[in-house]
Amino acid sequence: MIRLLGIDPGLRFTGWGVIDVKDNRLFHVENGVISTDSTTSVPERLEKLYKELQTIITRLTPTEAAVEETYVNRNGSSTLKLGYARGIALLAPAMAGLTVSEYGALAIKKAVVGTGSASKIQVQTMVHHLLPGITITRSDASDALALAICHAHYRTSVHHIMTRVRN
Amino acid sequence: MIRLLGIDPGLRFTGWGVIDVKDNRLFHVENGVISTDSTTSVPERLEKLYKELQTIITRLTPTEAAVEETYVNRNGSSTLKLGYARGIALLAPAMAGLTVSEYGALAIKKAVVGTGSASKIQVQTMVHHLLPGITITRSDASDALALAICHAHYRTSVHHIMTRVRN
Repeated sequence: MIRLLGIDPGLRFTGWGVIDVKDNRLFHVENGVISTDSTTSVPERLEKLYKELQTIITRLTPTEAAVEETYVNRNGSSTLKLGYARGIALLAPAMAGLTVSEYGALAIKKAVVGTGSASKIQVQTMVHHLLPGITITRSDASDALALAICHAHYRTSVHHIMTRVRN
Repeated sequence: MIRLLGIDPGLRFTGWGVIDVKDNRLFHVENGVISTDSTTSVPERLEKLYKELQTIITRLTPTEAAVEETYVNRNGSSTLKLGYARGIALLAPAMAGLTVSEYGALAIKKAVVGTGSASKIQVQTMVHHLLPGITITRSDASDALALAICHAHYRTSVHHIMTRVRN
């Protein structure tokens, strides 16, 4: 059995989801969203994000992590803020000794739905289908679970190795 | 006496500088550059950056930190990478309980040289003038010392308070 952590980073909301993979079957462990207060300072928000990710990793003991690759076609200030959150999302599992992989939206859609042209709703529906009975509060957590499922699919494949080399 | 840490973040090179402020006089403590290997993965590079900042903070025990505000007029991918490094540069002192302030290039030039139209060379010359006898290996470290000097100048002022509120 292997336990995987998916993280969909954002300064305001960071979704996370943990799944177990056993004999090619998937089992939901837990999911949630870390939110930070936009009225507090950026260093305080990053500290909260890092500490909560640390707590989740310590409590649930995943051994591998996957972080969503991000689009950068927004304005520079938004991209920079996303970069802060993404930096923390990459750091926290690395500091805990987990391997960290990155996947883009296309890879996630292909792994979860079977086609890169799948809609966000289709991905969410498949997450519920693959992990029956789960409760999800925000779509960020669903995206994080989709990412964990994606990593379960690709972790031993050439795609994964190429992604790691490319970083 | 108060000990200040300046950080000029970047994924490839992060400059840092520590100064003491005593009775409005400045004393150089130490400066340096943290470099990460661009052939290793981003999570590994962020881990190295975070750990080295942790080590500097533990060893030199500054109580306040200043991080350079960054321009975002590059391409999205560069901005995102800068965001990672900047996120770590804001996180490390926050996790160690330091207050963290941010200053842009204009504020740094005004504080160090006296005018916002100062050139990079003028800033470097003034850093050497204000902290006589220092050895600096890379300009990133000089920029970090300029930032620490800037924070020494502004830390009790209205500018500083406004900067903190704006975050």
